[in-house]
Amino acid sequence: MKLYSYPPAPSPQRVHIFMKEKGIAVPTEFIDMMKQEQLRDEYKVINPRGTVPTLVLDDGTIISEVTAICRYFEAINPGNPLFGSDAKQQAVIAEWDHRIEMELLTGIAEAFRNRGEAFKNRALPGALDIEQISELVPRGIKRINFFFEILNEQLVNNAYVAGDSFSVADITAFVCVNFAGWVKITVPEEQTHLRRWLHEMSQRPSMQP
Amino acid sequence: MKLYSYPPAPSPQRVHIFMKEKGIAVPTEFIDMMKQEQLRDEYKVINPRGTVPTLVLDDGTIISEVTAICRYFEAINPGNPLFGSDAKQQAVIAEWDHRIEMELLTGIAEAFRNRGEAFKNRALPGALDIEQISELVPRGIKRINFFFEILNEQLVNNAYVAGDSFSVADITAFVCVNFAGWVKITVPEEQTHLRRWLHEMSQRPSMQP
Repeated sequence: MKLYSYPPAPSPQRVHIFMKEKGIAVPTEFIDMMKQEQLRDEYKVINPRGTVPTLVLDDGTIISEVTAICRYFEAINPGNPLFGSDAKQQAVIAEWDHRIEMELLTGIAEAFRNRGEAFKNRALPGALDIEQISELVPRGIKRINFFFEILNEQLVNNAYVAGDSFSVADITAFVCVNFAGWVKITVPEEQTHLRRWLHEMSQRPSMQP
Repeated sequence: MKLYSYPPAPSPQRVHIFMKEKGIAVPTEFIDMMKQEQLRDEYKVINPRGTVPTLVLDDGTIISEVTAICRYFEAINPGNPLFGSDAKQQAVIAEWDHRIEMELLTGIAEAFRNRGEAFKNRALPGALDIEQISELVPRGIKRINFFFEILNEQLVNNAYVAGDSFSVADITAFVCVNFAGWVKITVPEEQTHLRRWLHEMSQRPSMQP
């Protein structure tokens, strides 16, 4: 098994925090995304989409979606489950993890990738060239602000994002809340529940930069 | 347990096919999305996001992401697993199911919701008003065409989307390929592998309209 990764970027970060929480270590090769190494031919032989991270299993199978990589690690190392134990917990965690991806992460990516030279024709990750659309920047900002309110509300009566125990949804949310800082959005003073949770998360050993 | 649903729409359709494949039946109330009943106050008491489907568990817990609802059904009814058995199969299925959602379904939604009066200010599902962006229509079309090629390629050596057994990824892909028809995209003649798979899928009892 081998992981291709670049820990400073949000998607690989989710995998690395997950691995630390589970106590998993895998041989890792770093792909410098600042130098766009993920778009080079050598890397596209491994993962034609040119996305990072990529997990290559011993039989050559490629797994390159963060959630799929984490589920693989959960399956081979089921102790301390981060995708939930019983049916209800599994569903609530899948619900929040998916919502954070579809509503918050997508919003941040819209705001982040649709301006600037660095993401010209790279407005979406993957093998397809996608032109920037400037109207997606304010749309992304609006979506981030809205979802921060949703998270704050969810954390009024829940210690963690998906209920009373730590889960992969907290990892996804933590990485996203920090990623929002890349488009200059931080948690407002009045979102005291989201701030409380963010402070607690930032104390976890797995979440140290 | 109670399901709120509208089977003609793509997201609820995924849940209904999944339930048929698993042999699960749940009391269901129909929410007529053609009449925008999902945006009425009575429904927003149940699901504030105004999305369909919604599964309400006996203790009142709300599950409203398709993938989370299906995972709940899988957990309470683990026979005939559609999310995979061993670790590798689970990861490959999660990989494809997630890719189809993020690359194909999102592309179709872009092409479908960013034009016409019916989706004015409703360019994304959920509680937030989102204005249409006309440039997302051709972008969505481009993404659909590209992902059809990916699926066709994947099906050269695989009987099903995620390998040699039927899975939830086939359900997501089948619903999406049909949904693409709503923006007038059908599988081209030359994509013979995708056509072969589509024909096989359309013979399954669960996938009858």
